[in-house]
Amino acid sequence: MSDIVQNILKGDQRSIARLITLAENNDKIATTAMKDIHPYTGNAQVIGITGVMGSGKSTLICELTRLYRKLGKTVGIIAIDPTSPFSGGALLGDRVRMMELAMDDGVFIRSLGTRGMLGGLTSAVYDVVEILDACGKDVVIVETVGVGQAEVDIIKIADTTLVVIVPGLGDSIQTLKAGVMEIADIYVINKADRPGVEQTIAEVESLVDITCSGKDRKTPVLSTIAKQGKGIDVLLQEIEDHRSYLEKTHLFEKQRRLRYEAELVEIIRKRLMSFIFDEQTCKQRINDLLDRIGEKKTDPYTAAEEILGTILK
Amino acid sequence: MSDIVQNILKGDQRSIARLITLAENNDKIATTAMKDIHPYTGNAQVIGITGVMGSGKSTLICELTRLYRKLGKTVGIIAIDPTSPFSGGALLGDRVRMMELAMDDGVFIRSLGTRGMLGGLTSAVYDVVEILDACGKDVVIVETVGVGQAEVDIIKIADTTLVVIVPGLGDSIQTLKAGVMEIADIYVINKADRPGVEQTIAEVESLVDITCSGKDRKTPVLSTIAKQGKGIDVLLQEIEDHRSYLEKTHLFEKQRRLRYEAELVEIIRKRLMSFIFDEQTCKQRINDLLDRIGEKKTDPYTAAEEILGTILK
Repeated sequence: MSDIVQNILKGDQRSIARLITLAENNDKIATTAMKDIHPYTGNAQVIGITGVMGSGKSTLICELTRLYRKLGKTVGIIAIDPTSPFSGGALLGDRVRMMELAMDDGVFIRSLGTRGMLGGLTSAVYDVVEILDACGKDVVIVETVGVGQAEVDIIKIADTTLVVIVPGLGDSIQTLKAGVMEIADIYVINKADRPGVEQTIAEVESLVDITCSGKDRKTPVLSTIAKQGKGIDVLLQEIEDHRSYLEKTHLFEKQRRLRYEAELVEIIRKRLMSFIFDEQTCKQRINDLLDRIGEKKTDPYTAAEEILGTILK
Repeated sequence: MSDIVQNILKGDQRSIARLITLAENNDKIATTAMKDIHPYTGNAQVIGITGVMGSGKSTLICELTRLYRKLGKTVGIIAIDPTSPFSGGALLGDRVRMMELAMDDGVFIRSLGTRGMLGGLTSAVYDVVEILDACGKDVVIVETVGVGQAEVDIIKIADTTLVVIVPGLGDSIQTLKAGVMEIADIYVINKADRPGVEQTIAEVESLVDITCSGKDRKTPVLSTIAKQGKGIDVLLQEIEDHRSYLEKTHLFEKQRRLRYEAELVEIIRKRLMSFIFDEQTCKQRINDLLDRIGEKKTDPYTAAEEILGTILK
């Protein structure tokens, strides 16, 4: 076992940061380390938080982290959102909150880029969750940008997924209706001191009534005012209740299997694509084929079959 | 050449609809037809339109289509947005506009699902662009949901990409700053009768000044009120100007090559993934590996290497 892995298992923050960077760069050292780390994973509770811009996800995460720390639990935070205060553009209030967390040895914060620009979850997120898990963080919180594939992918990683909604943003409810409804394990109506909060709660609850009818668990709808720390204790309790529910119903193993499957798919996808598009001979071949497609001497489907024919057994 | 291809080349709307459905279902008939169709493609002008929910993309498309029709051009419309009025939830005003278009033989409208839920462009979009191109549509308009990978992928398909922004939605400008800035060939400030329009224009223009400094083309920022048909003629002219710019600078061929490359990547990705995850023996193997990952007898990286070892030459 390499030094970096040994240091990570001891919880050394610098080694954690280094391995994350290596994993983001698809470095071979990271691959070896990830293999060594896997047996030490599976203990962290993974919480996903998603919601549109301006819904206060980051403030909510800060407050939730504070409370977990009070209970003696260590926390890892992964922000996969280019507009997240964790990724840079923090307002003053957020910055003070974050500085406090950043000074705490029991907290590790990392912001990751998205694949493409605002797209699906970057593949490194699976690695980072495993790293923070192996290093002994009790809770790992993953923040994703509010719309897009990332919002949907998060349920594959998180044991419990929170969807954050703000009163008065018609967009949020619209998005829910458009198909993101199924991903929430808990709804959080944040900024609940805003006008229109009753209507938002009623709207979300009526959607919950439809989607949860006939199910043995009804998705709870909570109100919080994260900036004032209000409602965070109830939220934490609901997260714990959801965890108990998962364990009681054996959905917990199913959820973990889903994460491993998503990770496996992602590693395979990445390897295959780099095999095809980074390897020099393949690259040249693809360039030639693109020329021929443009000249109408071949077409994309025939070209794809030609490439696959040369690489598959 | 099959009947369906012959009918499509004649512009038969039913055959077009049928082939699109076959392509969406990854039917083998579609693959063969797509190969036959390719030589007849490359003539349509492809316009991408993206922007957040409620920015009036669909109304803009309706008005733009009306104008193209007046100029004697045929139009294909592809909506890849679960919240688009073209995909169902049209308001009364929109519905009247769309009915008018739907009655017109020179217009073909199709709404496509997104991959996953709100994620990247569905792979069928490449096929649909080629089909509408081959059947003789002069203009093909692709509407994508405003945030997420789809918004970024659109530039690979479209010759000209419009980013639609609405005054007063702080979100739009935020999103631009977050990295979607580069995708616009033309900015459209729609609903320009709303308060705050001057400020929005100023903000977008100052962003353009930054991103276009040193470039030979400055991204134009236009105002429209699509509902009243205002500014559409100027927009159409700017689209034509951009097309001329592409042709003059030989960026046109580069753009088309980008589309073929994206399509090729997508076909390869799809084929490989279905080879690995749909084939029965592979499926069983993956299930076994997931069990072993869960039991910590192996890890996702080693498992991925094992699978790749069995399928790659």
